[in-house]
Amino acid sequence: MNQETPLIAEHLTGLYTDFYELTMIQGYFLEGKKDEKAVFDYFFRTNPFKGGYVIYAGLENVLHLLKNFRFPEKALDFLASHGFRDEFLKYLSEFSFNGDIYSVKEGEIIFPNEPVMRLEGNIMETQVVETLILNILNFESLIATKASRIREAAGKETTITDFGMRRAQSIASLQAARASIIGGFNSTSNVAAACMYGLQTTGTMAHSWVMSFGDELKAFRKYAELYPSNCVLLVDTYNTLNSGVPNAIVVAKELELKGEKLLGIRLDSGDLTYISKKARKMLDEAGLDYVKIIASNQLDEIIIRSLEEQGAKIDIFGVGTKLVTGYPDAALDGVYKIAVNNDKPVMKISENIQKMTLPGKKNIIRFTNNENKFAGDAIILENESNIPEEFYHPLFPDKKKNVKDFHFERLLTPVMEQGQIKIPVIPVQEIAEYTKKRLNKLDDSHKRFENPHVYKVGISKKLMKLRDNVKEEIMGRK
Amino acid sequence: MNQETPLIAEHLTGLYTDFYELTMIQGYFLEGKKDEKAVFDYFFRTNPFKGGYVIYAGLENVLHLLKNFRFPEKALDFLASHGFRDEFLKYLSEFSFNGDIYSVKEGEIIFPNEPVMRLEGNIMETQVVETLILNILNFESLIATKASRIREAAGKETTITDFGMRRAQSIASLQAARASIIGGFNSTSNVAAACMYGLQTTGTMAHSWVMSFGDELKAFRKYAELYPSNCVLLVDTYNTLNSGVPNAIVVAKELELKGEKLLGIRLDSGDLTYISKKARKMLDEAGLDYVKIIASNQLDEIIIRSLEEQGAKIDIFGVGTKLVTGYPDAALDGVYKIAVNNDKPVMKISENIQKMTLPGKKNIIRFTNNENKFAGDAIILENESNIPEEFYHPLFPDKKKNVKDFHFERLLTPVMEQGQIKIPVIPVQEIAEYTKKRLNKLDDSHKRFENPHVYKVGISKKLMKLRDNVKEEIMGRK
Repeated sequence: MNQETPLIAEHLTGLYTDFYELTMIQGYFLEGKKDEKAVFDYFFRTNPFKGGYVIYAGLENVLHLLKNFRFPEKALDFLASHGFRDEFLKYLSEFSFNGDIYSVKEGEIIFPNEPVMRLEGNIMETQVVETLILNILNFESLIATKASRIREAAGKETTITDFGMRRAQSIASLQAARASIIGGFNSTSNVAAACMYGLQTTGTMAHSWVMSFGDELKAFRKYAELYPSNCVLLVDTYNTLNSGVPNAIVVAKELELKGEKLLGIRLDSGDLTYISKKARKMLDEAGLDYVKIIASNQLDEIIIRSLEEQGAKIDIFGVGTKLVTGYPDAALDGVYKIAVNNDKPVMKISENIQKMTLPGKKNIIRFTNNENKFAGDAIILENESNIPEEFYHPLFPDKKKNVKDFHFERLLTPVMEQGQIKIPVIPVQEIAEYTKKRLNKLDDSHKRFENPHVYKVGISKKLMKLRDNVKEEIMGRK
Repeated sequence: MNQETPLIAEHLTGLYTDFYELTMIQGYFLEGKKDEKAVFDYFFRTNPFKGGYVIYAGLENVLHLLKNFRFPEKALDFLASHGFRDEFLKYLSEFSFNGDIYSVKEGEIIFPNEPVMRLEGNIMETQVVETLILNILNFESLIATKASRIREAAGKETTITDFGMRRAQSIASLQAARASIIGGFNSTSNVAAACMYGLQTTGTMAHSWVMSFGDELKAFRKYAELYPSNCVLLVDTYNTLNSGVPNAIVVAKELELKGEKLLGIRLDSGDLTYISKKARKMLDEAGLDYVKIIASNQLDEIIIRSLEEQGAKIDIFGVGTKLVTGYPDAALDGVYKIAVNNDKPVMKISENIQKMTLPGKKNIIRFTNNENKFAGDAIILENESNIPEEFYHPLFPDKKKNVKDFHFERLLTPVMEQGQIKIPVIPVQEIAEYTKKRLNKLDDSHKRFENPHVYKVGISKKLMKLRDNVKEEIMGRK
């Protein structure tokens, strides 16, 4: 990411939060708690799209925004007008985030309940950034995950490109474009995002191009003259098979005379299986087997899989609305919960046992079996010096898994120390490569769209004991 | 909106578009078509949420962004590196949007296929802003519509507030907050949006506040000390009915001794009907009938309606994810289509008859009956000097409607002339008032959640004739 480019206007960074974060930290401040230490975890609870995993994205944007999280004069004026107290506003005027952050790598495959980002610092700085972290990580991870599913459906060789800008949730289009590359997309039509994040651009033409010339053949000819080596013709303005494709064939033949090749035709309506087969046949019979067919129109992983199964002749998919909005889920349910307060492990007890949190400073261990596939993860306490050989189901402690002979790696590493970013800006394409490598190690059963195999995430005995002790203490107190 | 606040970084405004818009306008430029005139319409095709209407929102942001739509040096450098030609880049360096825009009022109720925004100018400026217009109007209108449905379910007196920032599609949270006020929400937790758009803020406390004190009663007492006149206690950290509510009652009684009143308690989990009834009873029995109950947790219009039907005792709803993401639709299907090219009316013919567009420069007439209810809309040609007495179904011309005795108004009025904004910045609350007034004139049958009555939108005889002529000409040409 271009570090000069703010996602949020400078004078709004510190205000990019829920109101209650500010009333709470004013409370901590006035209670004399401002230097108390806290540890918070970011994690999500349910895989989106009824899928088996999530791709973690948004780390770079979070770090960049936290580094610039300030309360400039305009922000302080706004808060003053809402009754915040002078001594607190003075504190905010000098505020910056000086905490430590541990995170899994951007592009990592992650699973429910894993504390994939851990923040340590004073209660003020760790509390006030909650909303920002959720707002960025939840969305970018959702879209990267959706993109990876679409990549899964389209297959490794097919080009897939983000056409979603016009239907994106407004300026979230910028981050959607970036996240879709992490999930396995090749390019985007979103020029601003391409400029911000160094992504490959893509595009064809709109119906208005054809209509502005009145005559389809003339419109195609003009476009081919202008962009002879990079020409994709939109063939459905009037009638795809009777007009669009025949006219495209005429232009392709004219390009051949000039030593150029028509890159492709684009279908944007009608039955894509039927029309793509007919169009492919027409192109092939005209000796144009090199002309690619690009399809768009309300695509997602389910429709693309169905098109592939029916033998549709499509080389490139343009995916819009359902990619950039993370349809049908629209949100990842990530949360941000306190785990240590003033060196004391804490947790949330809930009527809903699934909503209980894990206390203490934690890390995630990932195991790899001898076939180089991921064999399960375990959440341990950060200070466990030896990796245990057995892990327990977090809710059913009778269920355990032996991991003695597996390779392992520690997923959380430092990414920010005392407010300073400790990792380089990683080009999005490199993050995407990492995601691809990691997905190769994830068994296909976890990638299924229907009832995917649940990936095992256990907890260590020490963490389980800590959790049970903290819980007992809370229950006993009442 | 604060006119100083850019939604998009300044050097990105001109790039906030799909790549093909730029290749197309370079094409027009190189073809010598840059001064050709064009008229484009923005309209949507399908009501979201299977509902009966849409609330139009985003106008203010669109006008502001268009006014600032430029290609600064950074943008030009980026385009140069993508092969755009020098003479075109020189043109872009001096580019600004100098067209005219006609629009319905922000906050207006609109219906499928109505050209609610019309742009007139040269083909360059009217084409290149397509993506931006779609990106902003589609999203803000979607959220305003969702908000108005939630208002409908909650009833006129209930307070409803936007809690969605953490689950919003990242920075789209800013516009979601604004749009939800237009649709009828009272306030937002989103501080940056409140600052940008002058909205009322709202907030309670997080579980981490309670956990940071270890002891729930102590945490409540401290909060009540700090915010005695504005205190809402989150009661579900440990156990809502056995711990949270009893502790809140203790604190409420202590506040009474100081002459203060506890504002409310907040429920964020469990069965909201069951728990709110029990909590209400406990509060009432303690003589605290004035303490309000605030509920949140995956709410939307359907759940709120169900809670109301079951007699849940909830005074304030905090609505998050499903509001700010426009769940379950996630996008409005708005499109932007050319209607006049070089003074010649044009249209798109499609295999799908629903996707045919209406040629010519048009306006929308809204009729009001003697009971002061909306009686139907008609799309006419802008230059029809008399409002016709009959209107036709756009697809079935045998169906017509007589509107002779109805009052009428013209919905499209000038909002930008030669690139200059012609309307004042309207405070969001004022827009919301307008929406409310207009919704009062819309018959309830159109507001039903299930199978709403379809609101009639006809076309004038002259427009029908023009359409049929243009269509015949295109069909004849092939």
